[in-house]
Amino acid sequence: MEIGDVVKVCTRDSEYIGVILPSIDENTVVIKMKNGYNVGILKENIEKIEIIEKGKKPEYKLPPLDIKKNPNLKNISILSTGGTVASRVDYKTGAVHPAFTADDLIRAVPELLDIANIEGKVIMNILSENMLPSYWKKIAEAIKEEIENGADGIVITHGTDTMHYTASALSFMIETDVPIILVGAQRSSDRPSSDAALNLISSVLAATEPIKGVYVVMHGESGDTFCYLHEGVKVRKSHSSRRDAFKSINTIPVAKINPLTKAIEYLREPKKSEGTKKVKININLEEKVALIKIYPGISSDILKFYVDNGYKGIVLEGTGLGHAPETFFDGIKYAVDNGVVVAMTTQTINGRVNMNVYSNGRELQKLGVIGCEDMLPEVALVKLMYLLGNYDVEEAKRLINKNLVGEIEYRSRFDTY
Amino acid sequence: MEIGDVVKVCTRDSEYIGVILPSIDENTVVIKMKNGYNVGILKENIEKIEIIEKGKKPEYKLPPLDIKKNPNLKNISILSTGGTVASRVDYKTGAVHPAFTADDLIRAVPELLDIANIEGKVIMNILSENMLPSYWKKIAEAIKEEIENGADGIVITHGTDTMHYTASALSFMIETDVPIILVGAQRSSDRPSSDAALNLISSVLAATEPIKGVYVVMHGESGDTFCYLHEGVKVRKSHSSRRDAFKSINTIPVAKINPLTKAIEYLREPKKSEGTKKVKININLEEKVALIKIYPGISSDILKFYVDNGYKGIVLEGTGLGHAPETFFDGIKYAVDNGVVVAMTTQTINGRVNMNVYSNGRELQKLGVIGCEDMLPEVALVKLMYLLGNYDVEEAKRLINKNLVGEIEYRSRFDTY
Repeated sequence: MEIGDVVKVCTRDSEYIGVILPSIDENTVVIKMKNGYNVGILKENIEKIEIIEKGKKPEYKLPPLDIKKNPNLKNISILSTGGTVASRVDYKTGAVHPAFTADDLIRAVPELLDIANIEGKVIMNILSENMLPSYWKKIAEAIKEEIENGADGIVITHGTDTMHYTASALSFMIETDVPIILVGAQRSSDRPSSDAALNLISSVLAATEPIKGVYVVMHGESGDTFCYLHEGVKVRKSHSSRRDAFKSINTIPVAKINPLTKAIEYLREPKKSEGTKKVKININLEEKVALIKIYPGISSDILKFYVDNGYKGIVLEGTGLGHAPETFFDGIKYAVDNGVVVAMTTQTINGRVNMNVYSNGRELQKLGVIGCEDMLPEVALVKLMYLLGNYDVEEAKRLINKNLVGEIEYRSRFDTY
Repeated sequence: MEIGDVVKVCTRDSEYIGVILPSIDENTVVIKMKNGYNVGILKENIEKIEIIEKGKKPEYKLPPLDIKKNPNLKNISILSTGGTVASRVDYKTGAVHPAFTADDLIRAVPELLDIANIEGKVIMNILSENMLPSYWKKIAEAIKEEIENGADGIVITHGTDTMHYTASALSFMIETDVPIILVGAQRSSDRPSSDAALNLISSVLAATEPIKGVYVVMHGESGDTFCYLHEGVKVRKSHSSRRDAFKSINTIPVAKINPLTKAIEYLREPKKSEGTKKVKININLEEKVALIKIYPGISSDILKFYVDNGYKGIVLEGTGLGHAPETFFDGIKYAVDNGVVVAMTTQTINGRVNMNVYSNGRELQKLGVIGCEDMLPEVALVKLMYLLGNYDVEEAKRLINKNLVGEIEYRSRFDTY
């Protein structure tokens, strides 16, 4: 039995008919059914498989396209990290095949050629749930290389699980005039409801704009009508499965992008690019930084564990305006006494930390905890890794609650909840 | 200088004129200014204080009210745990004084008398950020006593920081036909913008309804127009400061309450009460349960720490559909091998865990991690404490992702995001 064969798979409860797809999990057989859905069946549950029709193994090596650069269009580099957004479907077998080269991308989404000259490059191939801080450095280095080689804009295809963590990391690590757009998809591109193509078109449109900074582009609502351009340090994945899973938090999106008309409507002032190809990266990160969500009954020993294991920074996701139980105070004192930076964010996600209102917050401040304004917990985590990787402890403490790249807005907006 | 005096306080930068209020922080002088706001000034920053007008210390012991029970109205017990919602203002001095007795409550919000016969009782006086699982037991016991003494409905006044954790705990711990309504306020009742009175009126209205279960009542939008009745296991504090901070997640609120017209509009079917006074509580909790939020770079040693410290349950707040990095797998294996229950929820907050879609989720399931459907992380934490406190490990594993009291809906709604 080989990839491409049409088979009937019987388990105790069900029967599936479809085409065998490549499976990255050796214990699972994945088949594409007629209705377009893929199903993974654990080998141990399979009672019988029969071949209905011998298929042909899909051929991935297609002849190179002969596309001339259009001198009137910008040059956009698409760097793939392994998200489903830039995958290509072999329509005969339904196999999903990561579209790595520029040719693959253009075959999958030929509309891109009307927008820009496209270069494609694989820089890694991971599920974003397996993203690590060390990979952020690799991505930053690859971006630098592309800009130095003349890219006018960068698109990073990325799995959605941790895309906002990566967007934050790149926001702090890279200084450049060139726009950097992260894009993902919530439905793999072999499903009829895939958001991959429209997200990709929107991201390339954004990458040709005269803006700078790091952004996330994803569907703006559940239909295929528009995408949002979110600031990379003010966005998070806020739903596990919806196409409009990404939401700007404590601010509004930067722009609305219509991938069909190619119109971009700015909702607030973007950071203007000066059009240079300057690029500077700062890839030092202190990885011994932890994020701890507070809850009733949390043991303060957890702080002792981190301090005794050499951690240099702790981001707390406190309750309400930035609180932690009194029973947690001795752990905080131990951390601060040992030179660990302790920063406070809120698990309400929306809103701002204000540790001056209640006695709990004032006590925490006295212990040395630093309130992080309206910064997201995920962003505070990445920022503290960056600060402790590049500055001494006192400077990290001074900067953690100061706005560096848009991660903190000092005035609250009332149209964002 | 005494409470009630009108003073001028000078710091290096500012001057404040107002009435001295009681302060719970010995290092801070709190004064109420003419504009109605309280300001806390650190004593170490004060350069000068002068008395402008000698005040009179407010008198808290007021004569008892002589209110006859109305036999046509239901009997509602209001149990105070220390939130700002049930505090009373001395209008002369502006001092905030916890309103503990029924008389105090009625003086603060006389409209309550039109709705029900009110009994008031203090069961504790804490900031909800200091809430502990052991206090949940005390609250459950107090509720049982009130119901056995004839209460037709229970209102719990509670600080907002952890109100949703307490609502979950009571949902699992108490079986009764009598409605239990938790209510809080986002603005202390001495501020002109306080939501305390309208929330309190709405909560007493809800407590007189023929429903059962545990609910949270808070403002439904930022204005003073209506409140929502949220199911206690499907709600969380979603903003640090707004009056409509509480949102139903993955479902819609049960009802809309108009505290001015006293109309209650049900938005979905409530759990109907049979009108009995049956009550059973189950206050065993296993407190050795931890909630861990996943992020790129999280060390799997944290799991080893909890297991080696005798923890029996771990709730993970994974990424996306319920994922954790491969680098975390050895810690999970260690936990499961040691008999610890490991449950998966999602940090997207909205949406459902589905660990069958990607290989990461399938691997986690093979390791023994149990996906918790659309249950909130905070609710999963409390539920696991409850299950491990009352059942053996196998039964806890079987029940963690089954709906017990409304905490899991097996079908997703599309009108809730």
